[in-house]
Amino acid sequence: MNHHTVTGFSSVPPFAQGLVRDLRVRWALYEAGLSYDVELIDPATRKSHPYRQKQPFGMVPAFTARGLELFESGAIVYLLAEESNALMPAEAADRAKTLVWMFAALNTVEPSLDALLSLDLQHSTEEWAKLRRPAVVETVRDRLAVLTAQLEGRDFLLGRFTAADILMATVLRLIRHTDLVASHPTVDAYLKRCELRPAFERAVEEQMAEYANSIQAAA
Amino acid sequence: MNHHTVTGFSSVPPFAQGLVRDLRVRWALYEAGLSYDVELIDPATRKSHPYRQKQPFGMVPAFTARGLELFESGAIVYLLAEESNALMPAEAADRAKTLVWMFAALNTVEPSLDALLSLDLQHSTEEWAKLRRPAVVETVRDRLAVLTAQLEGRDFLLGRFTAADILMATVLRLIRHTDLVASHPTVDAYLKRCELRPAFERAVEEQMAEYANSIQAAA
Repeated sequence: MNHHTVTGFSSVPPFAQGLVRDLRVRWALYEAGLSYDVELIDPATRKSHPYRQKQPFGMVPAFTARGLELFESGAIVYLLAEESNALMPAEAADRAKTLVWMFAALNTVEPSLDALLSLDLQHSTEEWAKLRRPAVVETVRDRLAVLTAQLEGRDFLLGRFTAADILMATVLRLIRHTDLVASHPTVDAYLKRCELRPAFERAVEEQMAEYANSIQAAA
Repeated sequence: MNHHTVTGFSSVPPFAQGLVRDLRVRWALYEAGLSYDVELIDPATRKSHPYRQKQPFGMVPAFTARGLELFESGAIVYLLAEESNALMPAEAADRAKTLVWMFAALNTVEPSLDALLSLDLQHSTEEWAKLRRPAVVETVRDRLAVLTAQLEGRDFLLGRFTAADILMATVLRLIRHTDLVASHPTVDAYLKRCELRPAFERAVEEQMAEYANSIQAAA
């Protein structure tokens, strides 16, 4: 048995496949060279009392490490990073900057990108979504412009790869249905650089294979 | 001169007064018994090149500690908590749970509450906002129900006060214009408990006094 267990959904709609947040934790674990068990949750029971004991909001991932029950992908990835030089440099200033960019990814960049995903892929036929979309796109463009400036002359947010790139890249993937990242070449190259990492490829392939297996099992 | 400098806005519209994110950092500093300098930014120049060097997104707060330039209120508050038992217990499991609830506040709870604030106080006359509001309120109620369960039998999210309460309380304040928190008595009592802490009162009074001074100075 592995020391780490990650929860994921057994199935999700096609638009969400490859975007569910347990991907962040799997990617971080592979970057750190750690193995883990996966516990798949039926989306229909995710808000059941037993699962809420692990993840109060009924979302994924929940994470168990040495008996400690955790949730929130951002927190889990940072806690893994604290113990792995593959995810974060040792110097205090660099560790602080890693945490800064992790919160930037999830609190400053993600909200507008996630809103655009929801607008386009869950509510596109609704009138409010059509009316609201231009302002959301404007905010997304502002965030991509800031990332362009930050990534100028850098392969990753801090120069070298860190846990912050795991969060930022998975956030940028939320708008893969648009050409907004492609129209910002520096950010586009950055995202491709992240997605070409073996640990990312392994994590996303594994997640996709589980969805395929669940469909076969249900057939 | 103090070791810490926090940036805030010199003025903001009335609806935002008491909600701007530098409040989180000021509150954390006072809980930790630390003094600091304030650098007020004219909102009109917040996206200028010099300020972007400190805060790439042109927001507040930016934070300087021992020569290290940081931003993102969540990251700053956690870094302060790492060095103060007033903000976080010493045990590794409790530190992990503090970080979990900090990310929960900013990545799982804040987005829908912030969306409701924006709908009601910045876009209330727009058609999309009227159409969208019911679904946003439903998400907010879901989050408040989870917090009710978490706070059952606890004064604060982890039992004792931590940095996670600074983030969660300031997130809950975003919907002070509604009766949604009041209609969840456990959460309402929790928020009042947080707002009665001397460090919170001192931080918010200081922030409000600065806005008043800026108006006088401009008159």
